[in-house]
Amino acid sequence: MFNQKRIRDYGVKIGRLETGKNNAITDVEGVTVGHVTLSDQNRQTGVTAILPHQGNLFKERLIASSHVINGFGKTMGTIQMAELGTLETPILLTNTLNVGTAADALIDYMLERNPEIGRTTGTVNPIIGECNDMFLNDVRAKHVKSEDIFQALENASMEFKEGSVGAGTGMLCYSLKGGIGSASRLVELSHGTYTIGVLVLSNFGILSDLRVNGKMVGQELKEAILDSYKEEDKGSVMIIVATDLPVSERQLNRIIKRSVTGLSRTGSMITNGSGEIVIGFSTATKIPHEKPNQCLTLPMIHEEDIDLAFRAVGEATEEAVLNSLVTAEAVVGRDGNTRPAFKDLIEKFNISLL
Amino acid sequence: MFNQKRIRDYGVKIGRLETGKNNAITDVEGVTVGHVTLSDQNRQTGVTAILPHQGNLFKERLIASSHVINGFGKTMGTIQMAELGTLETPILLTNTLNVGTAADALIDYMLERNPEIGRTTGTVNPIIGECNDMFLNDVRAKHVKSEDIFQALENASMEFKEGSVGAGTGMLCYSLKGGIGSASRLVELSHGTYTIGVLVLSNFGILSDLRVNGKMVGQELKEAILDSYKEEDKGSVMIIVATDLPVSERQLNRIIKRSVTGLSRTGSMITNGSGEIVIGFSTATKIPHEKPNQCLTLPMIHEEDIDLAFRAVGEATEEAVLNSLVTAEAVVGRDGNTRPAFKDLIEKFNISLL
Amino acid sequence: MFNQKRIRDYGVKIGRLETGKNNAITDVEGVTVGHVTLSDQNRQTGVTAILPHQGNLFKERLIASSHVINGFGKTMGTIQMAELGTLETPILLTNTLNVGTAADALIDYMLERNPEIGRTTGTVNPIIGECNDMFLNDVRAKHVKSEDIFQALENASMEFKEGSVGAGTGMLCYSLKGGIGSASRLVELSHGTYTIGVLVLSNFGILSDLRVNGKMVGQELKEAILDSYKEEDKGSVMIIVATDLPVSERQLNRIIKRSVTGLSRTGSMITNGSGEIVIGFSTATKIPHEKPNQCLTLPMIHEEDIDLAFRAVGEATEEAVLNSLVTAEAVVGRDGNTRPAFKDLIEKFNISLL
Amino acid sequence: MFNQKRIRDYGVKIGRLETGKNNAITDVEGVTVGHVTLSDQNRQTGVTAILPHQGNLFKERLIASSHVINGFGKTMGTIQMAELGTLETPILLTNTLNVGTAADALIDYMLERNPEIGRTTGTVNPIIGECNDMFLNDVRAKHVKSEDIFQALENASMEFKEGSVGAGTGMLCYSLKGGIGSASRLVELSHGTYTIGVLVLSNFGILSDLRVNGKMVGQELKEAILDSYKEEDKGSVMIIVATDLPVSERQLNRIIKRSVTGLSRTGSMITNGSGEIVIGFSTATKIPHEKPNQCLTLPMIHEEDIDLAFRAVGEATEEAVLNSLVTAEAVVGRDGNTRPAFKDLIEKFNISLL
Repeated sequence: MFNQKRIRDYGVKIGRLETGKNNAITDVEGVTVGHVTLSDQNRQTGVTAILPHQGNLFKERLIASSHVINGFGKTMGTIQMAELGTLETPILLTNTLNVGTAADALIDYMLERNPEIGRTTGTVNPIIGECNDMFLNDVRAKHVKSEDIFQALENASMEFKEGSVGAGTGMLCYSLKGGIGSASRLVELSHGTYTIGVLVLSNFGILSDLRVNGKMVGQELKEAILDSYKEEDKGSVMIIVATDLPVSERQLNRIIKRSVTGLSRTGSMITNGSGEIVIGFSTATKIPHEKPNQCLTLPMIHEEDIDLAFRAVGEATEEAVLNSLVTAEAVVGRDGNTRPAFKDLIEKFNISLL
Repeated sequence: MFNQKRIRDYGVKIGRLETGKNNAITDVEGVTVGHVTLSDQNRQTGVTAILPHQGNLFKERLIASSHVINGFGKTMGTIQMAELGTLETPILLTNTLNVGTAADALIDYMLERNPEIGRTTGTVNPIIGECNDMFLNDVRAKHVKSEDIFQALENASMEFKEGSVGAGTGMLCYSLKGGIGSASRLVELSHGTYTIGVLVLSNFGILSDLRVNGKMVGQELKEAILDSYKEEDKGSVMIIVATDLPVSERQLNRIIKRSVTGLSRTGSMITNGSGEIVIGFSTATKIPHEKPNQCLTLPMIHEEDIDLAFRAVGEATEEAVLNSLVTAEAVVGRDGNTRPAFKDLIEKFNISLL
Repeated sequence: MFNQKRIRDYGVKIGRLETGKNNAITDVEGVTVGHVTLSDQNRQTGVTAILPHQGNLFKERLIASSHVINGFGKTMGTIQMAELGTLETPILLTNTLNVGTAADALIDYMLERNPEIGRTTGTVNPIIGECNDMFLNDVRAKHVKSEDIFQALENASMEFKEGSVGAGTGMLCYSLKGGIGSASRLVELSHGTYTIGVLVLSNFGILSDLRVNGKMVGQELKEAILDSYKEEDKGSVMIIVATDLPVSERQLNRIIKRSVTGLSRTGSMITNGSGEIVIGFSTATKIPHEKPNQCLTLPMIHEEDIDLAFRAVGEATEEAVLNSLVTAEAVVGRDGNTRPAFKDLIEKFNISLL
Repeated sequence: MFNQKRIRDYGVKIGRLETGKNNAITDVEGVTVGHVTLSDQNRQTGVTAILPHQGNLFKERLIASSHVINGFGKTMGTIQMAELGTLETPILLTNTLNVGTAADALIDYMLERNPEIGRTTGTVNPIIGECNDMFLNDVRAKHVKSEDIFQALENASMEFKEGSVGAGTGMLCYSLKGGIGSASRLVELSHGTYTIGVLVLSNFGILSDLRVNGKMVGQELKEAILDSYKEEDKGSVMIIVATDLPVSERQLNRIIKRSVTGLSRTGSMITNGSGEIVIGFSTATKIPHEKPNQCLTLPMIHEEDIDLAFRAVGEATEEAVLNSLVTAEAVVGRDGNTRPAFKDLIEKFNISLL
């Protein structure tokens, strides 16, 4: 998308399933993504907003689920998601110390669009994910403001950039520049063809662990660049999974858990300091906020149909992480801190990814 | 049922919802219960079988869920139930050291009825619950045999006894004789009237904590009988919840969790040594073992309709515990150990329950 | 405390364990509580801050755990607490739509006191609990500001008011005025006497369900006042448990789960719309932020010693809810909405609580 | 061990940490493993017993934890393990339909060694894991008998075979012959060198997914052998993790969860039909069954010391799966069903693993 060179453009093909049209989370119909990028000197941060559908989410909820791979993170809103199995706001990603700001702005955004909240109906449950961009960004300054949140929500479209953009502006991955990456897979079942899309905010791992489709590229690169920085992983990764597959929240939870297979295959050890949280939703069914007179009717796949979805989310997660790495531009940030771009190193050291 | 005097016959009315026809778990259509009682000298134990419907459960599964109130117990089969959200065998209750026997016999029972298990399809997940009846029963002798399991399954019917029968033969509750108890409630929604039925195997609590509909009857009784036995709670309770309410497994889980309100109102502190496990199922939808060509369609209530079910399960659990107590006969068991029957004490000391 | 008439002053004695000196959460040494109350016309809300110890929490963490009784709530910070088993900030309670503000202010508070956050060490995990005070408060206006948060933290002391104060200013409980309540119990073990303290922010339940120590006071009151308001429960309850008992995070989790027994005994059905979250911490061990050269050594009770703690938390929770009710003053709030004070009704209708 | 050619003997080195002396779970001091292999015609099954220490486990418990990667399995005993955080019996692995038999026999084994069970103390919680060996074994015949269980426990020693032995006799892995595999890693911390050992019972995956240290060996093999069998994954894997690292049960749970990284790197998609359960224990602390007068004292690592353990368990799991594959002998079983041995194919098709 947007003419960025992605991992497939290097000849690397992850897995065996077909991708969606743009090989992105927005291949799931109705899903859009918007960024605000704040990039100057010590300010290297931003916001990424994922809109699960284009209607009023508060009134037409989606089945949703979250999964904690490693809980050293500050993601908000998962308690209610687990209890009710639904998503009622867009999903925001930003830096760790701006989660309060983001929650507050998303509440404002929802209040404006739903005047009945806090009057004739109850409250709203904002969903905020985060990673810590302190190496490149002056995270203590909490640079993200309410208007940045609103703008990211406003910017949402089917096409979006990857790499050092939005919430990914200041993130690192495998000791290189990381950020936003996406991918998708098609799931062909007897009753239809469905899409699973993944978006990651990558901010984890150390260089020597990086693998590209099984190849130990990180070790090779580390030896090439003779870098002496201390390999320390204090990162995180947020994984957003969208699908149009008709599933119950239990099934959705099973599916999003499999993102860990893709993550592992890029080399992750899931370190202590890394908040690794997955949030998934299905656009197949809209749950009305208001109680109807009749029962709801939920279409769902038979459990025997779920393996392809498991494979799809593993493949898409692996490719999304690699896309986040290979599209990211080098950034010089706080106090002159910097991390190289994977694509620059590939070229400089003539590394083969195949 | 079977002309036993139950707690309502003492004038005690728990809660405000209407009961089902027999105020028992079998008010949920299709559910039957069977006991085998082994009661002579040191052998004071047995089996209680709950059949969730009268067809082939392995081929037509029910949505099911379990909840651990306190996990000092050996209940089998809940891992798969949580993953798949379904029940594919009857539920067996017995004494703690016979769980292996019970699982083995239930596997045989399922193999006999489903010749494809282990050949053209996979395996089967037996559900076994237990409490420890060691005070009255020689639990080390593992008195329950395979034929007792088969007989309990065979005995299942809509009418069943409560108190010192089946798996309840040797159980204690609030330092008195406990065992099997049941109750049910009707849930009236705009789209129909549904039933929630509860069956408990009670084996927990100390006398001084017992409350009957808020009245501190246990304390009163304790003072009356001047009993000097050490009040020690090493017990357990199994709670089985049946309903015909159309619910997802998440909703069912929310419902069965509320059994703890009823349990608490009888006086329970949920002590360390007490395995307190709830297993619930809904008969509203049958999930086919074999994958159909189309999606499944799951009817489910809107979340705003769930509060009555919460109330129902709390009321029915409270009443089921009281029924288990008030119907139980005194038993003299292992090494002459004995516990008085609540009904005998009520009469002897002229205790008012109102 | 502060000369408020509490439930014991009405002759009601909950349970059998001894209370701490002030029968409050601050009986646990080092714990302090501070309120900011915002009460005028449509603004009926506030903040309550609980400081677990008086040192630098970020550098000397406490073992902590949370438990979701019902997850229709927006509590922040529990994911990391579950992963790491520790608490590193004070706990804030406020209204639902101010959780973003509160998180943001608490981050500022921590940044100011810990200049290494976001520089030489990672980030910080703010803990925010909330209930929805929309009936009395104009919750959409998000009246709580950063300075209110700082002030509540500043105000923390061993003595604190209960009822319609702090975060409890606009809360309802059992259709009456609710808010802040507290209680404590002593736990005597062979190796020492320990304290368990509870603070609740009560905002749940309908009048007809209210029980005082087993007595159906709510039903009686309802009939007396002939009130025609629709009994609808859209509330919540936050329960904070403090102890100096040496426990592992698993043991602490077991203990705080038992708060549901006390909650149930006041009459709660744990309704759908009610966010009911428990957060507990133990002051017995301080976990250093910086890694020492040696292993940590964690003192913990033997599991056989835990039953008294279970009883204590049940009793203290029940009494804390009753204290929140009986100390609360009537409030006229948003659009003239009002709820009566329990104490006024007791007097007016001459209700006996015994 | 026992002169079997393992994956390292093919030149494949997984990860970067040092192995223990024998690169096996028994490198953790006190741990022993025993097999009983039942292999003739339609009977291709067995038992593997893991003894966590050589004393009386019921009286001196170990801190333990379990984790469900995928719950389509029948593992017994994890509810109590989660509640109490301890292990009080050896761990048995066998085929799926023999879990009842195994539980019953393990109860007998414990009763014989602990006459106070069911008399002066409570009951015992047997831990049984399983995989389904129905392709090679007549699983419906339930060939494992009590005496096989006792014999496996009796056979336990520091040296043990891998591959088609014990519970692994009839198991498949990546469409090849699977079974028992093991590996270990050393964890060097400032306060000592610790060992993490893993034993797997492998029975999952399809050939085309198999990777050896990143190399797509399965795809290559599949093309070489032109096999036309349907690649269907109905398998499972049991992962047992032993360590002498001083950890709390929360920390141990974090560690054993990381086994999924190793599993994923061998190519697993964690399919629907696969019960994938991890059970871990630490030998560092013995928790006495009887309550002492004083508090317990639990040594535990600081959380900042845990990353090496995460890496160790990932590496050891990956290598243990590969060892299970490469040591397994071809077996002709039920109805002439058979699966080739990996080592035979490597030789036949001259496959390089490097």
